[in-house]
Amino acid sequence: MKTDLQVSRWLNTETSPSLAALRGQLVVVHAFQMLCPACVSHGLPQTQRLHQQLQGQAAQVLGLHTVFEHHEAMGEVALRAFIHEYRLTFPIGIDRPGLEGDPIPQTMRAWGLRGTPSLLIFDAQGRLRAHEFGAVDDLALGLLLGQLLGEMSST
Amino acid sequence: MKTDLQVSRWLNTETSPSLAALRGQLVVVHAFQMLCPACVSHGLPQTQRLHQQLQGQAAQVLGLHTVFEHHEAMGEVALRAFIHEYRLTFPIGIDRPGLEGDPIPQTMRAWGLRGTPSLLIFDAQGRLRAHEFGAVDDLALGLLLGQLLGEMSST
Amino acid sequence: MKTDLQVSRWLNTETSPSLAALRGQLVVVHAFQMLCPACVSHGLPQTQRLHQQLQGQAAQVLGLHTVFEHHEAMGEVALRAFIHEYRLTFPIGIDRPGLEGDPIPQTMRAWGLRGTPSLLIFDAQGRLRAHEFGAVDDLALGLLLGQLLGEMSST
Amino acid sequence: MKTDLQVSRWLNTETSPSLAALRGQLVVVHAFQMLCPACVSHGLPQTQRLHQQLQGQAAQVLGLHTVFEHHEAMGEVALRAFIHEYRLTFPIGIDRPGLEGDPIPQTMRAWGLRGTPSLLIFDAQGRLRAHEFGAVDDLALGLLLGQLLGEMSST
Repeated sequence: MKTDLQVSRWLNTETSPSLAALRGQLVVVHAFQMLCPACVSHGLPQTQRLHQQLQGQAAQVLGLHTVFEHHEAMGEVALRAFIHEYRLTFPIGIDRPGLEGDPIPQTMRAWGLRGTPSLLIFDAQGRLRAHEFGAVDDLALGLLLGQLLGEMSST
Repeated sequence: MKTDLQVSRWLNTETSPSLAALRGQLVVVHAFQMLCPACVSHGLPQTQRLHQQLQGQAAQVLGLHTVFEHHEAMGEVALRAFIHEYRLTFPIGIDRPGLEGDPIPQTMRAWGLRGTPSLLIFDAQGRLRAHEFGAVDDLALGLLLGQLLGEMSST
Repeated sequence: MKTDLQVSRWLNTETSPSLAALRGQLVVVHAFQMLCPACVSHGLPQTQRLHQQLQGQAAQVLGLHTVFEHHEAMGEVALRAFIHEYRLTFPIGIDRPGLEGDPIPQTMRAWGLRGTPSLLIFDAQGRLRAHEFGAVDDLALGLLLGQLLGEMSST
Repeated sequence: MKTDLQVSRWLNTETSPSLAALRGQLVVVHAFQMLCPACVSHGLPQTQRLHQQLQGQAAQVLGLHTVFEHHEAMGEVALRAFIHEYRLTFPIGIDRPGLEGDPIPQTMRAWGLRGTPSLLIFDAQGRLRAHEFGAVDDLALGLLLGQLLGEMSST
């Protein structure tokens, strides 16, 4: 079982999502940085489409801004401008800054992420079922999520 | 329940696939023409990737060459050259020519396909679960197939 | 100086283009086969755009169907269907079949083409200025053709 | 004749490029904002390729960071991180902030740019030869630049 999300502020939502509160649903977490080219070209557009295509399903898509470099360039004001310009509408949490000068933020550290983009999928029981670093193929991602959803709906 | 596949010849396989024989598996049928631009640019590459990604699952991907125009340009010799050049490795059946001068081949007629590319998905009980005309999004296709697979594995 | 085009039939034109007759213009020849994947995905769409963007300039874009394999699958009837389906509107010549059983057609043999797609550019004096095998970048192609056109217009 | 570039700081160069100093060369100016999606997906990659393909020619490619919105998110520190992450190597100038509270920076105001991305091309005499707003096709851009280069080399 993973530590829960450590988020200093949520954007695009009035709530404070957590793995605990989302028990019973599939949770997809896309960890990104707003100045990470592969996140911008591939991961975030994919996550936005996923957010739209999973409407009405027992699933929640979340973004997690895990800034581990260029901290001065990727603060909350910059992230808000980025979210506005890229028309991102899914909930995005700002990973809580690292402790005692650690450049790695807290959730990223606890979950052992290798970098951005990273994609994690937790099932309805909160168990980690996938953890990918780098670009993930649309078809493969759909098959994986679909199977987890199919298992849930059958039980 | 749909009429079964009416195929005059199978390529890329030693067997003669049919919906009846594949009962118990998910069956994806991609109907195409070798000179249909959207089939060549989108449908066939997607089907080839699907064939690879579904290895080891209870699923079978089939191509169906439903020639309803330019019949002289898309005979078996031409299709074999096309399959070779495009490195297609999934089983492909040639839809049986239409009866009594009908330009529409028999399976295409029986299934009421609107044109190419068309994608049909049959579940383990042989029931038609999806029938799409035109380009289908990778993520949406993966989610749909995954859910059908997930339901099967849970029962 | 290259041998002139050896063409058994021209499609998409009432005329019989030749390097000799086109002296004074830039001539771009795209050699392709209708079942060559890189021609279909890259070379032919690029050539079609080039044909449109060079309207009104002292330049002529030509296609050359240089069939050196799968001859039975790529005859004139098949090529006509292909041209219709892919909405190609520039003049396309069928390279004259090889002599004495040579599988390589005559222009392809005379010009020493390595395969398809190949792109050749002849200047206003009929001199070969570029000969590329494989995919050519749009920006690089534009720069090259533009410079040849610029030189012509200044002299 | 346009006002010259008004730049508060140049990055990726030890010099201070200006239209006046570059007289005799073709000058391509790509005006962008680091949080403008079409700049990131299309304009900047195209400009980077152009910079590489014009090496050795009488031409200079320049970027101009014309921030007219989200000023707090796109300061110099953020731009430096962006340039590093996106591996941009051509000279990039920061357009001088607008006067008297004008959100539009000075060069953008003087040149009447409509937004980002914008592309301007000045010939060897410093005359504006093209001014495009939005995405520009690679082939069309190559043809235009090539023709201007061809005219120069012939005179």
